Formats: sequence, structure tokens, C-alpha cells
Amino acid sequence: MLLESHLQDTWVAPMSGDSTAVDVRDAVTGETVCRVSSHGLDLAGGFDHARRVGGPPLRAMTFHQRADLLDALAAAVRARREELYALSARAGATLNDARYDVDGGIRVLRDYADRARTELPDSPHLLEGPAERLARGEDFLGVHLVTPSPGLMLQVNAFNFPVWAPLEKLAQAVLAGMPSVIKPATPTAYLTEHLIRIITDAAVLPPGALQLVVGSVRPALDLLGEQDVLSFTGSAATATTLRTHPNLVARSVRFNAEADSVNAIVLAPDVTPGTPLFEAFVREVVTEMTVKAGQKCTAIRRVLVSSEQEGAALDAIASELAGVTIGKPTAQGVRMGAVVSLAQREDVRRAVHRIAESGRFVYGDPEKVRVVDADPERGAFLDTLLISADPDAAAPHEVEPFGPAATVLAYRDTAHATDLVIRGRGSLAASLVSDDLAWTTAFVGEAAAWHGRLHLLDSTTMTQTTGHGSPLPALRHGGPGRAGGGSEMGGTRGVLDLMQRTALQASPMLLDSLRTARPSADSV
Amino acid sequence: MLLESHLQDTWVAPMSGDSTAVDVRDAVTGETVCRVSSHGLDLAGGFDHARRVGGPPLRAMTFHQRADLLDALAAAVRARREELYALSARAGATLNDARYDVDGGIRVLRDYADRARTELPDSPHLLEGPAERLARGEDFLGVHLVTPSPGLMLQVNAFNFPVWAPLEKLAQAVLAGMPSVIKPATPTAYLTEHLIRIITDAAVLPPGALQLVVGSVRPALDLLGEQDVLSFTGSAATATTLRTHPNLVARSVRFNAEADSVNAIVLAPDVTPGTPLFEAFVREVVTEMTVKAGQKCTAIRRVLVSSEQEGAALDAIASELAGVTIGKPTAQGVRMGAVVSLAQREDVRRAVHRIAESGRFVYGDPEKVRVVDADPERGAFLDTLLISADPDAAAPHEVEPFGPAATVLAYRDTAHATDLVIRGRGSLAASLVSDDLAWTTAFVGEAAAWHGRLHLLDSTTMTQTTGHGSPLPALRHGGPGRAGGGSEMGGTRGVLDLMQRTALQASPMLLDSLRTARPSADSV
Repeated sequence: MLLESHLQDTWVAPMSGDSTAVDVRDAVTGETVCRVSSHGLDLAGGFDHARRVGGPPLRAMTFHQRADLLDALAAAVRARREELYALSARAGATLNDARYDVDGGIRVLRDYADRARTELPDSPHLLEGPAERLARGEDFLGVHLVTPSPGLMLQVNAFNFPVWAPLEKLAQAVLAGMPSVIKPATPTAYLTEHLIRIITDAAVLPPGALQLVVGSVRPALDLLGEQDVLSFTGSAATATTLRTHPNLVARSVRFNAEADSVNAIVLAPDVTPGTPLFEAFVREVVTEMTVKAGQKCTAIRRVLVSSEQEGAALDAIASELAGVTIGKPTAQGVRMGAVVSLAQREDVRRAVHRIAESGRFVYGDPEKVRVVDADPERGAFLDTLLISADPDAAAPHEVEPFGPAATVLAYRDTAHATDLVIRGRGSLAASLVSDDLAWTTAFVGEAAAWHGRLHLLDSTTMTQTTGHGSPLPALRHGGPGRAGGGSEMGGTRGVLDLMQRTALQASPMLLDSLRTARPSADSV
Repeated sequence: MLLESHLQDTWVAPMSGDSTAVDVRDAVTGETVCRVSSHGLDLAGGFDHARRVGGPPLRAMTFHQRADLLDALAAAVRARREELYALSARAGATLNDARYDVDGGIRVLRDYADRARTELPDSPHLLEGPAERLARGEDFLGVHLVTPSPGLMLQVNAFNFPVWAPLEKLAQAVLAGMPSVIKPATPTAYLTEHLIRIITDAAVLPPGALQLVVGSVRPALDLLGEQDVLSFTGSAATATTLRTHPNLVARSVRFNAEADSVNAIVLAPDVTPGTPLFEAFVREVVTEMTVKAGQKCTAIRRVLVSSEQEGAALDAIASELAGVTIGKPTAQGVRMGAVVSLAQREDVRRAVHRIAESGRFVYGDPEKVRVVDADPERGAFLDTLLISADPDAAAPHEVEPFGPAATVLAYRDTAHATDLVIRGRGSLAASLVSDDLAWTTAFVGEAAAWHGRLHLLDSTTMTQTTGHGSPLPALRHGGPGRAGGGSEMGGTRGVLDLMQRTALQASPMLLDSLRTARPSADSV
């Protein structure tokens, strides 16, 4: 019943008798799925194993060889993805939600494999750009060499993407020549554990390249060093604790945070109700509220519409929400399942009540929901919750209900709309919906610096969009301020950011020698 | 006598009666140069002025227009550089040292101006790379937009480059469209103050683009926000205090640290005494020990030579040091002046004694020095100090005497040499001296990840090198771990790193519109 960890290429159970072990419950039925503890696990041994056994062969491979590992990983996960779909239902996820998580992760692996083969050289490191002359003569040149760091990536993940998140980070770490230690969030640890079992069963990665620590990884923070990376996804509060950890600070351990944010969609004044673009806007809002029961860091929390359109927007969104069937994720016709746990439901309830203090619930009741094939109290079910609030109140811009909830806020004019967006103090993503090029261009100019990604919906993109909430491997994922100030993906940039970029001052002959260098066999 | 600050485009004196005001003394004579305090200065008003008045016009300019500002800055400083040379002598700097600082700063301004005109577009922002198709159709494209952050750069600088450091950071901030607030280190604040006077006299920057805060800037840390950057150069201890400041952490304020490090030079076994390359190695060590009296973050502290060459290396370096005349920086024939203050001299003495615990002083006496035209006790003079120590002791790799001192450490074989270099736990720069391509290539493979810059000296580069200790605009400056984990310069990368990179998902039409967009006149 105690979930196992995978350390030093072996599945190991924690020691029993841990009074702090946590019960993980089925989001739909409330039954215990497993118990989680890292009591007695040899984390120091695992970290050492990653660095000693896992790192050298990965660093010795070329980018293209590492890309082949990603393809093998993708194939291994794809072959058994049905198991992950089935297990996802226990976390409240519908088949659609599970595909978003599982197939999304497989797509990132494949995208990065293709990208590495076309954009990175068939060598273990990268000599960047043309060499620059640094002196009058021709023999003293400058260039940047990007090499793998002889450390490990510790992933500390959020509960909401137990498959996509570890695979997305793993794709970049493998290409960067770095072994990984994954620490999943407790509420969905059993899903990441099953993913790692699928991968280790297939034996597609070199020994030591991938380890899993279920339970608390806190003691391991003292084990991180100058060449390691801590890649964190989760709350701003935890990000703060990690970022200020004395050992991380003392050793300048690279820290990347992708924290929650209060993302917005802005409907421009030119988009009138009844038009296809207005309908696309409504679909976007409802999709963001319902996919994964709104448990996405990128999900829309604030819906900004002009005062004139407020009524029509509220009506249209509410009417679409009324068609959303909620219940047991595997039941026929169910579009939205449960949030991950009863505790999570309480968090969402507290958050929406704070936001509604300056307004009202237009659709849904935080305390009541009709569900199909399930017990609405034992399962962590919530109705979709549409709030209308005072745009100038604080809570709608600061409080993030991490569930199926969004707040409509009416702006007076474009300047007001810009101010409101910025009151999120930095977001992962925002959508702008408009066919008015001048309006959008001006808005982008004001809002871009506050966002990691801007999704610009117009009559031409609306039929092709991948959606507000979907981070894509080609694009940077991460935002400033409240969103944590981090950066992931963005194509090969996400890989190179994990490596060390060293300026080289050297002769042309030496640069040629480095360009063709392969690590010797005995360094493997 | 109280040094003025430049806030809201006005020179202002601090309020008198500050019991914590600091006396800054002439490094050579011990006379008081000025007193430093920020008592009663309106820092909040200054920060607000930067954001409200300084930012908008800089952001509205194109990269090329900002480049013109850098040229004007360079011309203004060059026109009065003699004043800065003269004043530098009070900090212990020879004319050569002052040129390194002043002319070096002018060169960075000019280099960045040229670079911006050739590498960046004539627009206020940058659309990066070709757009990627994000869906099957051709209307939904992905690209990255790099825009100016609507914040300010707060520079917190070290004492050793009172002119170069502010100009180097200013060059990148101006190009990034960001106003600057400069906080110089107290011991040389009067030099930065004079630099800013030269710039404000010339009136080459828009109002609000440049402010100076002399004295403590600690209260201002609470004023930094999500769009600001804190660019720090100084000790690892101060970096830690800043990095963990609650406001900086809460708002994900971007923080760049360039901390001290224990940099190495490695003489390969193939370089034998008496050869020109061996002589070049000796010159490099002596230059690093004596320029600015060894007060450079990049200076060589550890000299790694094979056991066989230890004797010859010690003899050759000591013999060269014997020819270095020390004294009043402006006196005829003086090659090395004083360190910046008596307190700094005490720090260096403590540091070298710790290192010498496992060895001995081969050249120089930390307590005694012969000087020309000055009082060796009232002035902060130190002899050049060459130590021979046990390579396997801890202190030589951990303790940085920030003055004219270096330690020779003998390695047994190449593996031992690599281990020793890495014991610096991350450095700004290292030099490798060898004509053996295979040796250098292998060493680079092991050592690159621990360094921000590798300076590879061989028989072809030795006559053209810009030197171990010189950071260049073309190359990244900053190193992992102990060196602070930051990054400056590296060509236009240093500019773009100060801006916000936002992923855009948009139609081709919208991307065209953004490519040609200019901010409207009223946003200026």
C-alpha cells in the first residue's frame, strides 16, 4: 500500500512506521489509493548515483543520440498509455483530461526529439554562433561553448500534470545530458509512479538517468550542488521556501519556478455578441474552466469584457456551462470530473467566496453540485463557478481558485483593461480576442512584459488555435512576477538553459579541435 | 564634504546629522576625500521618477536610437576622462589602472552601440527568429517577442571598477529601454559620483534615465517590483542577503549576481620553462597580481603547475615580481599603487595568512613593503604576495585574498589538476596554457561547466590576447556556483536578458503589424 520509489535503479519501499505518511484518496470515491512516505529512503545514495552513474553516459552522448532516447521514451509510454488513462480517472480526470496529460507528454518528447535532430549538432556540446575576433590579429577568437552540467535535475512537480510535467522536464534534461530525480506531488504520486514503472520496464534509459522519490524530498535540498538544477512547479509559497533555502542560495543552485498565476482573457470592444469570434471567446473560457476541472496553472481566471458586453458575455458563458455534465469521469456523457481531493475543493471554495465578496455567483453554487454516477460529497466534485465581481476590487486579481472557476470583470475603456490585466502582477498566459489589429498591437505593447505567453485570437486563428491553456514545446512557458519568473521549453532554448554556457577565447585551431571533439570512451 | 546623490534629475545632499555616515579616505595618503550617507534621501521618489519619467521615452526609442545615446555617453566621458584618471589615483590606481577602468568603460559603450546597430532591429522591440507553425493550417504561428520591461535597473556595484561597472551595466540597460539607478560602493563612491556628474553635465540622456544613490540603498530594496532588475556585483555574502530579501523573493524580482571567485590559471605539462609560452604564462600571472593591485573579480588567485615545473614557475614569477615598483600611483616608474583602503589591506592580510598555513610566502611580506613617494603605513600599500601552498588544503581554493596575491599549487597529473580547478566551486574565468591540443580539449571538456569564461593561451594566441582578467562585451561575464550564477554582456544576449521574452501565438497579419509597430507619440 506504501508507494515505492525508484532509487539507484531499484524499486524500494519506504520504511514503515512513518507517522507522517499520507493517505492518498480516490478523487471520485474517497477510497484510499495508496500511502506516501519517503521515510528511510537513501536520498543521498540516489543523488550520488545520478551524478556518478547517470550523468557520464548522458554527457558522452551527442544531442542526436539523446534525441533517440526521447523517441524510445515516447514509444514506451505510448504503448501503455491506456493504463495511465485508466488510472487518471482515480484523480478525477476524464478521458479527455487524461489525454491532455498523457498524450501531451508524449508529444513533447517527440517534438523535442525532432527539434534536437534539426536544430542541434550531432555532438555532445554546442559551439554557438560564429566566432568573433577579439583582437586585431586573426588568431584570438571568441565563441560560446554550451556543455552539459555535471549535475542532476531535481523535479519538484505539481499534482495537476502527473505525466506531462515529468515528461516535459525529462525531455529537456535528457537532451541537456543531465540525469533526473523526480519528486511528484503527493495527491497524484501514484500516476507518476506508474509512468516511471512503464519507463523502467521498457529499460530505454541508461542506468541512473531517472529516479523517483515519492514523499518528502525536503532533506534532499541540502544535497544539491553548484551543477544541479531544481525545477519547481507549484505554489508561490513553496517557491519562496525553496528559493531561499540556505544551501541553494549558498551554492547558487539554479532554480526555475513555474508558479500559479491569475491569467486573463480580454475580449476587445470590436467583438460583438453573436459573431463567430464571440462564440470562440465563450468556448475558450468554458474550455479553460472545465478541462482538468480548471486545475491548470495556465487556466483563465479573469475574463475581461467591456461594460457594454458584460451582460451578453455572462449570459453566453453561463448558458454554455449549463450544458456541462459533471460526474464520474468514466461515465457516459460526463465532460468534467472531480478536483483532485476534498482539501483542494475546500481551497477552491474559500477562494471563490473571497472573490465573490465584491460581486455574486452568476452560475454555479460552490456548496452544491449535481453529479452523474458518483457521490457528490465523498467525491471531490464542484460545480462550474462563474463569478461577476467589481473589477477594481483586489481579490479577483490576487486570489486564484485552482478549480472550475472564473470571474468576469467589466472594463470601462482600453486603458482600464490594460491596468486590470497588469494587476495580475505577472502571468503565464493571457488571451486577447479581437479583429482590430491596431487595438491588439497596442495592447500587446502594454501587456507583453507582464506575460510569458500571449494568445491572440482573431477570426483567422480561432479555427486553428491550440487553445489558451496549452503550453507548447516551441514556445516559452513561464512568466514574470507572480508566475515565478521562470522559463521552460521555448524550443531548444529550454535545453541550453539547463547547460553551462562558457565563453571561450581561443585560437582557430583549438576551436576546430573542440568542434570535432568526442569524449573518449573511458570517460563514459 | 557629504557626497551628493542625483535623484529626480537634481543633485541633492543627504541630510546632515547621520551618525552612520562613513568617512572615505584617500588610499595613498589617508586624508578624508568625502563623507557618504543616504540619510533623508527620497529614494521612493527617485524610483518612481525612473519608472514614470525615465522609462517611457527609453522604451519608445528604437534599439538604434538607444545606440546613439551610448555613443553620446561615450563621447561625454571621453572628453573628460583625464579628470577621472586624476581622481582614480586617490583610490590607489595608477594611470594604467585608471585607463583599464575608464577607457574600458568607454569601449563597452561603443562596442554595444555598434553591436546594437548591426545585430538588433531599428525598432523598440525584437521579434525573434522565424515564426513556427503551431497547427496544421498556416494561420496560427508562434514567435517570441522581446520587449522592454517597464521597470528600472538598480545597480549595486563593487568598489573596484567605479567607472567601468556602472557604464557596462548602463550600456545594457539603455539598450534594453530601461532607466538606471546606480548605487556605488562606498570606498570609491566619489569616482562614480564624478562620472555621473560628467554625464549629467553633458545632458546626453533623457530625464529620469539615470540616477545615483550614494550611501545605503537597503531601504530601497522594498521598493523593487516585478519589472525591475537588481544587478549586483560584490561579495557572495552580500549576494546572499540580497537574493533572499523577502520583497525580492515575493515579487520574483530579477536578480543578477557577479560574485568574487577563486580563479585559476593552469600551466600544462607540455610548456617548459624558458619557452616564449612559459614567459607569457609568467607575465599573465604577474599582470593579474598587479593590475589594480589585484583587486579584480577575475584576477588569478590559483596558479596550477605540474610538480616538475613548480620550482621553475615560482622562481620565474618571483623574479618578475621583484621588478614591480610599488608606491604613489602618480610617481614616476610606479607600476602598482595601493589597495583601496586600510580595511581592505587587513582583509588581504588575513586571507593570505590563512592560505599560507599549509605553505609559505615565496615572495613578499604581508606586513612590510617598500614604497616610492608615500607613507607605507598611512597609505593602503601591500607588497605583491606569492604563496606556495599544499594543493590539497582547503584554504587556497576557498579563500580569496582580494589584493596583489596568488598561490602556486602543484598538481601530480592532469586528473589532479582538473580536480583542483573544480575545487573553486565555480569561477568567473580560468586560463589554460598549452600547445597540446588534445590536452586542452580534454581539459575544456571537464572544466567548462565550472567556468563563465575560459582563456586558452597557446603560442598563437599569446601575442594577441586581451588577457585573463578582461571581461569583453562580446563574451559572457559571470560564472556558476561560487561566482554567483549570473550572466552579463555576452553581446546582445546581455541586453535581451534584461527584457521580457513573451511567446506570441498569432496570425501572420498580426505578426506583420507588430513587426512594423512604433509606439504612438502619446505613449512617450
